[in-house]
Amino acid sequence: MNHLMAAAAGDEPFDCILKNAQFVNVHTEEIYQADVGIANRRIAHVTQPEENGLDSVDCAVVHDCTGKYLLPGFIDTHVHIESGMMTPANFARAVIPHGTTTVLADPHEVCNVLGVEGIEYCAEAARDILLRVFLAVPSCVPSILGAESNKMTFGAPEIARMLAMPDVLALGEMMDYMGVIQRDPRMLAIVDEAMKTGKLIQGHVIDVTSRQLSAYMAAGVESDHESRTLSDAVMKLRAGMTLECRYGSNAQNVPVEAEALALLNYPVNATLCTDDREPDDLLRRGHIDEALRQAVRAGVPPIKAVQLATRNAALFLGVKDIGSLRSGARADMVLVEDLRDFSVQEVFIGGRLCAENGRLAATIPSSVSPIESRNTMNIKGTLTRRDFVIPAEGESVRLNGLSLRDGDPFMTTLVTTTFAVRDGCAALGDEADFVTMAVVERHNATGNIAVAPVRGTGLRRGAIAGTVAHDSHNLFVLGKNPDDMRIAAARLVELGGGFAAVENGRVVAEVPLPVCGLMSLHPVEVLAEEMAALKRAVNDMGIVGGSPVHMLTWFCLPVLPRVRLTDKGLFDTVRQKPLPLYVPAE
Amino acid sequence: MNHLMAAAAGDEPFDCILKNAQFVNVHTEEIYQADVGIANRRIAHVTQPEENGLDSVDCAVVHDCTGKYLLPGFIDTHVHIESGMMTPANFARAVIPHGTTTVLADPHEVCNVLGVEGIEYCAEAARDILLRVFLAVPSCVPSILGAESNKMTFGAPEIARMLAMPDVLALGEMMDYMGVIQRDPRMLAIVDEAMKTGKLIQGHVIDVTSRQLSAYMAAGVESDHESRTLSDAVMKLRAGMTLECRYGSNAQNVPVEAEALALLNYPVNATLCTDDREPDDLLRRGHIDEALRQAVRAGVPPIKAVQLATRNAALFLGVKDIGSLRSGARADMVLVEDLRDFSVQEVFIGGRLCAENGRLAATIPSSVSPIESRNTMNIKGTLTRRDFVIPAEGESVRLNGLSLRDGDPFMTTLVTTTFAVRDGCAALGDEADFVTMAVVERHNATGNIAVAPVRGTGLRRGAIAGTVAHDSHNLFVLGKNPDDMRIAAARLVELGGGFAAVENGRVVAEVPLPVCGLMSLHPVEVLAEEMAALKRAVNDMGIVGGSPVHMLTWFCLPVLPRVRLTDKGLFDTVRQKPLPLYVPAE
Repeated sequence: MNHLMAAAAGDEPFDCILKNAQFVNVHTEEIYQADVGIANRRIAHVTQPEENGLDSVDCAVVHDCTGKYLLPGFIDTHVHIESGMMTPANFARAVIPHGTTTVLADPHEVCNVLGVEGIEYCAEAARDILLRVFLAVPSCVPSILGAESNKMTFGAPEIARMLAMPDVLALGEMMDYMGVIQRDPRMLAIVDEAMKTGKLIQGHVIDVTSRQLSAYMAAGVESDHESRTLSDAVMKLRAGMTLECRYGSNAQNVPVEAEALALLNYPVNATLCTDDREPDDLLRRGHIDEALRQAVRAGVPPIKAVQLATRNAALFLGVKDIGSLRSGARADMVLVEDLRDFSVQEVFIGGRLCAENGRLAATIPSSVSPIESRNTMNIKGTLTRRDFVIPAEGESVRLNGLSLRDGDPFMTTLVTTTFAVRDGCAALGDEADFVTMAVVERHNATGNIAVAPVRGTGLRRGAIAGTVAHDSHNLFVLGKNPDDMRIAAARLVELGGGFAAVENGRVVAEVPLPVCGLMSLHPVEVLAEEMAALKRAVNDMGIVGGSPVHMLTWFCLPVLPRVRLTDKGLFDTVRQKPLPLYVPAE
Repeated sequence: MNHLMAAAAGDEPFDCILKNAQFVNVHTEEIYQADVGIANRRIAHVTQPEENGLDSVDCAVVHDCTGKYLLPGFIDTHVHIESGMMTPANFARAVIPHGTTTVLADPHEVCNVLGVEGIEYCAEAARDILLRVFLAVPSCVPSILGAESNKMTFGAPEIARMLAMPDVLALGEMMDYMGVIQRDPRMLAIVDEAMKTGKLIQGHVIDVTSRQLSAYMAAGVESDHESRTLSDAVMKLRAGMTLECRYGSNAQNVPVEAEALALLNYPVNATLCTDDREPDDLLRRGHIDEALRQAVRAGVPPIKAVQLATRNAALFLGVKDIGSLRSGARADMVLVEDLRDFSVQEVFIGGRLCAENGRLAATIPSSVSPIESRNTMNIKGTLTRRDFVIPAEGESVRLNGLSLRDGDPFMTTLVTTTFAVRDGCAALGDEADFVTMAVVERHNATGNIAVAPVRGTGLRRGAIAGTVAHDSHNLFVLGKNPDDMRIAAARLVELGGGFAAVENGRVVAEVPLPVCGLMSLHPVEVLAEEMAALKRAVNDMGIVGGSPVHMLTWFCLPVLPRVRLTDKGLFDTVRQKPLPLYVPAE
């Protein structure tokens, strides 16, 4: 503190000076030319408009910022790092060049695979990666009790233990919002643990009435990132919720949320977040910089957009030394070319130049956590082709299954069909529009395998397997024949997880995700290429839709409407109960 | 939580409904008609504009708010309760009818008298008084080391112990700002204790350069309430400090601060506070309601003014359940007639009607703390008339003393004068414009008594004594003759402190302040009358200026310019060193 204060007061030289920046003051909404002096990795002094510039004689390191706008580093208030399919270190390498310097990460996916060890891994792997990573304790692991198998069920004791971890800032999105609203004791006990600590409680709430929203907030939930309509966003802002305006890979609410912000005088209770962002988007389109761009495109005045990602986010998180370039704050700073495209020129973290022209300019050490070399695939016995068929007797069999419309994985319906029986199995391959889907439990070697018919994927040949399957991330396989399905599944067991596409007994594309079956060890550039190759392969095989991740990984989630397949079998997600596979003949 | 949530969701009746209010939404800056449902002393639901009103069939207690504006309870972010010269319970009784429901109190005065026990007393006395009292740990006790005697010196260990108390939210105003800026190790150690806890650090900083301000903020100080000029307020807001806009009894910065807010787009980093507010003002003019009125009069749009006292204050304090009428928040609410005069009609605390038409409508129990019956006057031996003269030999003596200009106690200068000597004493009474001032140490019975001449008080006869004497609150006496001075001082020793005016050996007015010599046991109405009588008496005796408190109680403070008298003698507050009383003849 002494050197910082001495530099601020003018008694010692700064460590570094940024000269002639167009300073964007997130407090007063002014833009003026200023110089910034850095010491001890923090902001020592920012010149005021009427003041002389800082004297570069006193400091050897001067960075000229002429013509560029200086902003506080960007903050993502809600992100699942695992959705980028990268380790925290590679995620940091990917997002820092886009100006992100702080995130609040909910390690929801990795905790479904590793239990409490998942958040411990994230805390460890996120240390010393330049990006400041705060953690939110996943509140809903698994998504619904009993519907599927994951590594561990989080109850109040586990939540309490995780909330006490030093980097934990919040209870993560309370997705079981109906459980909270209906005062489910298990959910209330979890919320109560967070209330006791005074920590932030983040929400996730869709399609509720204002009375239900009030009940949810009365429980202590403070925010939401799921506003898909203007009226919903307006209702939440008026209610005093913090609207975490989302611009993810698939869910992009910023345009409609921008309208709500404009209507309601740009309230302070609004931030930006990405939630789920895929590697290709992170590489080519960006992160919070993209959200800023989209917000401005949607009509948010540039400086109000910047406030969302900086000052408002810091107030929301309750972290005092970020979100503003005031004296004493961390010298996390972004220089952009303009306030329309937010093209990030330089990124400073702790006063150190960490990215330049879209490229990382600092070394981020890779994690040495043993988790990253652990194969988490824990399947009972060896998979055989018999695991990927539906046994049947007689001439035909009537089966329940899932049906997709237009390849949209977010809405599936129940389909009941009669199939021919051949060689003691339902002959799903006979029906052009159907494939076989299998979900294999992979955490605790229970031996659970569920198989069911699926209509409307577009798959015409071969098989595709994956271990990214929200939220329990069991091994799923879609295929036209059991041999290719077995090979695809077996390949992922070898790799420790990922995606594999198999045709005629041969792996035609694969993306190894050996870290928990969720994350690659490769940097974003390599991973994005692997994902693109996988996408080409699965599109060749007939899968419709632009993103295989989008298409495949939401198939199992038992909180999405209406019918899902988990390792325990078919599940009616509306009535919240299992469905039988076999249906008596009509 | 269950009943609150059930009422919000519509599953159980509310405890109380406020109908047809003009709801002032501090998040969106809208005003619309709404109904508010209360349960478990918290806000359960506020109807949204497009929603039907709440059904009064479900709830027996309905409060009609037609034509009135509903606001969150007002928050004072920086106040010394002792300046109201009332106990916390009586302070609550005085300010609640004015709409104040939460204060952050710095028990700075009482800690100079009681040490750590002072904040413990405040915490105890502020329990169950309806008003929510958060405490700030006094950072500068005494104001300057060595310049005067108080009960106890607070160092880092005491500060750490007090910061750990449950109601403590902040380190109170860091008044030794030059100590901090110049990196005095003792001050930095105190600030460091607060930094370790992550608690708020409040400031107090006057007439510094922007570089000095940066050094102060770099230490961790977050706010200030001393902006007396537009340029100073602008500098602080731009720097990202929170401007605690002050409207006290004597220091009223709101008008100039309002100008700064208007220039800088009404930044969130601004609140309202009163700092020091005297009983008469609290009774007749109000508290934060008066600050709101003055802010609007100075041009702040009404809803922006309301945000200062509610949402902004809550964000600044980091307290989530106040400052907004969102679901889950405490049902602390104020109904006002309009948003110009802020005439407070009703005040609800925890959903309960606590004040109506300016009168308390709830019972606040008086404290049973033994502190309130302890006489804190601890003077060595018995005072005699010899204690109130300046011994001298020869025909004349040359003495240093204090001089006031226009009765303004905030600026005193050194005056050196030759007095005749009679009966072995300097004959101060001979000079019409001079009086004798004495300061008697009263905490640890050290026997310290300092006496010096004072010019410019206007006092023409008798003596005035007091035990409210910032910051150490020793016993001071001003007088034209030693007999009246002794009687006045002796009377205060009997009373346990307060003010006494004596003429011709008779007490002509007195205000007993038996609690620590700072606070009355009487309610504001009685105390204000006593103070008015005292004021009449001292004005009769020649003291100029409207407020005897203002006039007398700042005489000893060794951080005000330029010369002060403490129990240790004359003190040059600019050069920070003692001054001799006796000066060699020219």
